[in-house]
Amino acid sequence: MCRWMAWLGQPVLIEELLFKTRHGIVDQSLHARMGAEPTNGDGFGLGWYGGGDGPALYRSVAPAWGDPNLRELAAHIESPLFMAHVRAAIGSPVQETNCHPFRDGRWLFLHNGFVADFALLRRDLMLAIDPARFADVHGSTDTEVLFHLALTLGLQERPVEALEEVVGFVEETARRHGVSDAVQATFGVTDGETLWAVRYATTGPARSLFASADVDAIRRLHPENERLQRLSPDDRLIVSEPFADLPGVWQEIEQGTAVTVRPGGVLHHQPFVPRAPALATATAQAADG
Amino acid sequence: MCRWMAWLGQPVLIEELLFKTRHGIVDQSLHARMGAEPTNGDGFGLGWYGGGDGPALYRSVAPAWGDPNLRELAAHIESPLFMAHVRAAIGSPVQETNCHPFRDGRWLFLHNGFVADFALLRRDLMLAIDPARFADVHGSTDTEVLFHLALTLGLQERPVEALEEVVGFVEETARRHGVSDAVQATFGVTDGETLWAVRYATTGPARSLFASADVDAIRRLHPENERLQRLSPDDRLIVSEPFADLPGVWQEIEQGTAVTVRPGGVLHHQPFVPRAPALATATAQAADG
Amino acid sequence: MCRWMAWLGQPVLIEELLFKTRHGIVDQSLHARMGAEPTNGDGFGLGWYGGGDGPALYRSVAPAWGDPNLRELAAHIESPLFMAHVRAAIGSPVQETNCHPFRDGRWLFLHNGFVADFALLRRDLMLAIDPARFADVHGSTDTEVLFHLALTLGLQERPVEALEEVVGFVEETARRHGVSDAVQATFGVTDGETLWAVRYATTGPARSLFASADVDAIRRLHPENERLQRLSPDDRLIVSEPFADLPGVWQEIEQGTAVTVRPGGVLHHQPFVPRAPALATATAQAADG
Amino acid sequence: MCRWMAWLGQPVLIEELLFKTRHGIVDQSLHARMGAEPTNGDGFGLGWYGGGDGPALYRSVAPAWGDPNLRELAAHIESPLFMAHVRAAIGSPVQETNCHPFRDGRWLFLHNGFVADFALLRRDLMLAIDPARFADVHGSTDTEVLFHLALTLGLQERPVEALEEVVGFVEETARRHGVSDAVQATFGVTDGETLWAVRYATTGPARSLFASADVDAIRRLHPENERLQRLSPDDRLIVSEPFADLPGVWQEIEQGTAVTVRPGGVLHHQPFVPRAPALATATAQAADG
Repeated sequence: MCRWMAWLGQPVLIEELLFKTRHGIVDQSLHARMGAEPTNGDGFGLGWYGGGDGPALYRSVAPAWGDPNLRELAAHIESPLFMAHVRAAIGSPVQETNCHPFRDGRWLFLHNGFVADFALLRRDLMLAIDPARFADVHGSTDTEVLFHLALTLGLQERPVEALEEVVGFVEETARRHGVSDAVQATFGVTDGETLWAVRYATTGPARSLFASADVDAIRRLHPENERLQRLSPDDRLIVSEPFADLPGVWQEIEQGTAVTVRPGGVLHHQPFVPRAPALATATAQAADG
Repeated sequence: MCRWMAWLGQPVLIEELLFKTRHGIVDQSLHARMGAEPTNGDGFGLGWYGGGDGPALYRSVAPAWGDPNLRELAAHIESPLFMAHVRAAIGSPVQETNCHPFRDGRWLFLHNGFVADFALLRRDLMLAIDPARFADVHGSTDTEVLFHLALTLGLQERPVEALEEVVGFVEETARRHGVSDAVQATFGVTDGETLWAVRYATTGPARSLFASADVDAIRRLHPENERLQRLSPDDRLIVSEPFADLPGVWQEIEQGTAVTVRPGGVLHHQPFVPRAPALATATAQAADG
Repeated sequence: MCRWMAWLGQPVLIEELLFKTRHGIVDQSLHARMGAEPTNGDGFGLGWYGGGDGPALYRSVAPAWGDPNLRELAAHIESPLFMAHVRAAIGSPVQETNCHPFRDGRWLFLHNGFVADFALLRRDLMLAIDPARFADVHGSTDTEVLFHLALTLGLQERPVEALEEVVGFVEETARRHGVSDAVQATFGVTDGETLWAVRYATTGPARSLFASADVDAIRRLHPENERLQRLSPDDRLIVSEPFADLPGVWQEIEQGTAVTVRPGGVLHHQPFVPRAPALATATAQAADG
Repeated sequence: MCRWMAWLGQPVLIEELLFKTRHGIVDQSLHARMGAEPTNGDGFGLGWYGGGDGPALYRSVAPAWGDPNLRELAAHIESPLFMAHVRAAIGSPVQETNCHPFRDGRWLFLHNGFVADFALLRRDLMLAIDPARFADVHGSTDTEVLFHLALTLGLQERPVEALEEVVGFVEETARRHGVSDAVQATFGVTDGETLWAVRYATTGPARSLFASADVDAIRRLHPENERLQRLSPDDRLIVSEPFADLPGVWQEIEQGTAVTVRPGGVLHHQPFVPRAPALATATAQAADG
């Protein structure tokens, strides 16, 4: 169980969202309300676009609530697009290479959820990664493998379709191994301009995921709230759980849905339908052969 | 808010108490029930007597629940007397020198609670430390200062009286600075043979503290419990909160009480009555003069 | 033994100086040439001015050469004024609160060298800190104490004079305790606009310190060097040891000297003459009385 | 480049060899003399047999020279058989799962050297690991992969032969990828009773490796040395580089050699001759097919 958030909008000091909201992601590292576990203290990560080339990463094994460096960076770095993740490890070691977001070139990726029986499936999933990318897997999480599968399947050309194929492939691989309920996932992906988010579960309710509502509506509903009045129509947030219980500010993203956030605050929904890619078939044959 | 435990009895693998009890101290690092906060994830410490000279310390800034080294040590080190502490930092940095237990020669010391307005009192309290010990204070917690005050006031000759004087001195110093409710404390102290524990608050209810009941009684009450049947009459535990909700196993130590545990499982109670030591008067005069 | 550097000039990506120079400060963490020890692997710190309010700090106990986060920050943060320090601990613990630079408001401070017999002098030095600042000392280095002494003595109004008084006070305190050769120091100080640096030793040769030469001269001397051609007349570097052995690029700062670097690349030298402040006398009397 | 040591003999406090020898392994973390690099500061590990079940591990990303916990453990744990390793990372992250020794059941394994172009070969090497063991690879070093290959090839039944096959397989895989000079290695392996060590390089001189001489000879040569007089005939050390320059104490293990140390101090030499195992052929065919 983890929690994550992504911001796309006007450039803001990162602390505005990490530390200055009442129930922001750092507070969620200690007191998550909607997850299986309240504590997400097994490391964290922050990825942002700003100075320099491509996205920057700051990842640490410390709990987010107690890391003075995170507080420093958040108070001094401004960004129009960033993602943060607080981790609750389920089995894999607490190490920076297991912290989200993961990066490839201009792309960032993060995940809340799991691949069921990952130890059993890990080899088959890793074999399906483009061999040229195999050595880029430095950690031991399911997420890093999913990311490299997505890159293999075209994440950078057609992000939602590639993730549908990743999930389809994992489900098919799981089925061959007799594993059910293969995937629990909310994903966040960005190339530095557009933001995609997915909410999906093979079976049963998926992990929670919310988008901020249209800024006009938010401001009309809460005219007395100074923070909310500072929002511009360009701003959009995607979060594992709402930062506060203000009515009308958050809309739940429905299960089995992918959303696309484009500059200007445009939010587009589409169904998320896993399908097995060609590679799954090939690999399955090799494995069965 | 922190949680601690101390064991004096037959030599046991440390994991028996840290990891194999249902609601042991490591579980309490994630899910404390009786404290102000459920999470004690800002580092931990383990002090034990066994091989080598004097007590050994293992302290880390990682949360206890996720540190693989703690699990290793607990599974491979046997000890007749050890103490463990999981920390919830309140203001001071997460660093090993702020982790309990603290050590001087053969002595170990740990603490749950706080000195109110410690930043305001810190200088006066540190001035009262024996100048020869001043440079031994490496961290920034109230606990480390209390420990060095106790050493200054004779902890190694008359532990309970020295702690009564420490608390009396802090209360008097607080009063001079206009600080009320100065001390919230459970203390654990040992010289490697005897174990002392204190429960005290200047005002209101003190932090919780429990001793394990007589082993004969425990075994009679729970004849079906294999773990409890392995206890010997020599064994005694002091804990911030019970490891499990078994009736008759734990007795609350009353507020304003010091207990002494001697080899053989002997448990002695006495009132804990803070009194200002001579040094407090001298320092107060200097400060007022 | 430590190494440090400071940049004041045109805004640059920090990595240009930390990682892209041949023998920059990160290389010096592994292979210092002019220090007592080649290895400065006991933590590091980076302080910079840029976004947000006041200077930002990133400090870590990891060796600078191996920390992926430092590499990330350096590649994505641009600053017109920053300082970096790599630490070789001499006795005090490896913890973030012992890493330089230290900060107060808009001020940053760092140091290479030591106070002789610091454990013996620590109490007297800490007593001379403004009591309102006493609780701000979180670590256990001599440097942090020197910084708070300097703040007490007016660093923010007259930086060089305050440091002269700090050193004078330490030397006087050392003398009273029978300690000779009290201070070995290069200091770096900034308020975000001006940069001061000091090179001094009570006895014998002081730690090395260099300033970059005038940019016009540098460019004329090395017309073929692209990196050096990118320097502007506003740029000035202060370093513990030169980044490369190019003739004419570095000028040694003489022992017993303070330099002031102002925007525009102006470099001013003045003698650095320790003198005991009034407070030293008062404290000495109290101690003797 | 790394340094390691292994002790098999009378039970000793671990600090006797880690900290109390003049140029022990911890000193080598800062000042190695015979390696490509003097600094081995990218984490360390200690594995020992003693209390509890099977070997214990303590691994940390801190430099060995500065870790207070290592000093504590070494001063309080006694063991008749232990291994220590200080790491100089070459490319892979500094994380505990990349620190040696690696463990499987009662077995410990460590390595100094490298697989050339490991990123290129990693996938083929990991595919040859027994699928049931695949998910046990948590880090990203070549060593961990070599260990799991060795386990796959029968390390626990015939350690030297299994390592010969591992090296043969890596050389063959490298050849297929056009990589020459595939393996540089000294290995240390133990099951808790016997100790094996290997020195080998595909091409050119191998990393250094030494065994301590017969204790009788050592004591005759250095009658005045108290530490050496305490050695018993059962004691044997294997080290990457000698702890001190005493004549007659250390014998170099020749390149292309495996040694076996059995209880009682017995030291047996045999040639180490890599050979490709059956699995190499099968995998090669699959890869070519």
